[in-house]
Amino acid sequence: MADEVILLDKWVSPFGMRVRIALAEKGIKYEYRDEDLRNKGELLLKMNPVHKKIPVLIHNGKPVCESNIIVQYVDEVWHDKAPLLPSDPYLRAQARFWADFVDKKIYDTGRKLWTTKGDEQKSATEEFIGYLKTLEAELGDKPYYGGEKMNYVDVTMIPFYSWFHTYEASGNFSIESHCPKLMAWAKRCMQHESVSKTLPEPEKNYEFVLQMKKRLGIE
Amino acid sequence: MADEVILLDKWVSPFGMRVRIALAEKGIKYEYRDEDLRNKGELLLKMNPVHKKIPVLIHNGKPVCESNIIVQYVDEVWHDKAPLLPSDPYLRAQARFWADFVDKKIYDTGRKLWTTKGDEQKSATEEFIGYLKTLEAELGDKPYYGGEKMNYVDVTMIPFYSWFHTYEASGNFSIESHCPKLMAWAKRCMQHESVSKTLPEPEKNYEFVLQMKKRLGIE
Repeated sequence: MADEVILLDKWVSPFGMRVRIALAEKGIKYEYRDEDLRNKGELLLKMNPVHKKIPVLIHNGKPVCESNIIVQYVDEVWHDKAPLLPSDPYLRAQARFWADFVDKKIYDTGRKLWTTKGDEQKSATEEFIGYLKTLEAELGDKPYYGGEKMNYVDVTMIPFYSWFHTYEASGNFSIESHCPKLMAWAKRCMQHESVSKTLPEPEKNYEFVLQMKKRLGIE
Repeated sequence: MADEVILLDKWVSPFGMRVRIALAEKGIKYEYRDEDLRNKGELLLKMNPVHKKIPVLIHNGKPVCESNIIVQYVDEVWHDKAPLLPSDPYLRAQARFWADFVDKKIYDTGRKLWTTKGDEQKSATEEFIGYLKTLEAELGDKPYYGGEKMNYVDVTMIPFYSWFHTYEASGNFSIESHCPKLMAWAKRCMQHESVSKTLPEPEKNYEFVLQMKKRLGIE
């Protein structure tokens, strides 16, 4: 029996993009369903009753939730092609550490950047640049976090590249001037079809954010 | 060459307890170093420069940080005894989901419980009970989250049992009256030497918290 794979997602979500990149790297065919997050569908509420959040991967009827857990699941089930986590336990722990760092620091600080103003925004910008510099230092002179190939950490972080324009326009700063190696890494990742076909146009994300700010009354 | 294993930790930390339980389950000998968190040692700062937090497991000179990542590492390196993560990828994803739920909800809400007062504390208490009920529902009639044996989820959650008294005394409520099955589960876990020898006396944790409240000026 062929695998039935459904992804409940939202095009603009960096978490959803992680899963889409992982599935593309593995060459897995799946049905993509873009959710209306202001009017969540019954299937989403049934498949992720705890968090009620996208992305949810439904594999042969069974749900897997939380993006990094889904990416690890995808890597374990379809392990023959494009391995994402290293096979060595120590390197695997290191990859998990940096994916966790991205999870804990980038989204929330990035969100602060476009939802605040004045001093609060300035301090979020400084914090954000600090985290990017930490990530740039970890990258060092390697082409990818995975070394010669993209791995789990690359897949976890690269979706935020489509948000960089939103962060820069909101906080009025240039990521490239602070983190040239990180930007070179992002452009390198974009040469992979799995990434370039997944990430939306940066302007489209920014337009989405401007509309959301209007709705939230934080213009 | 025998493995050299050092754990930088703090006795009262539920995150550190996870690692101690995992090491005990595996029967691994290690050197325990209790850190003074108000005056962090050079080794801790060197081994975890990003977060500067305990626990850190140093295995043959190389550091692994973040408690759930350490527990997975311990499980992968010493895989022959007392497996903690299920071998099936779907069950492994489910175990990771619940460990992640504990990570995201229990500590922070528990901390709110003893650092706030009045309405804020009341709302933290309700939130906390809600999370425990979700965990109790997931346990169902199983003896352990791992089924017939303790697994990764049990190891992730059980350290908070030593904090239950602190939460109850702070929020003036009874966990047993809301979650009798969860309490029965905790007592079942306490029959394992790996748990009972790791968890401090609940009164000792509460005393620690009362002293910390004095220091923070939130009596």
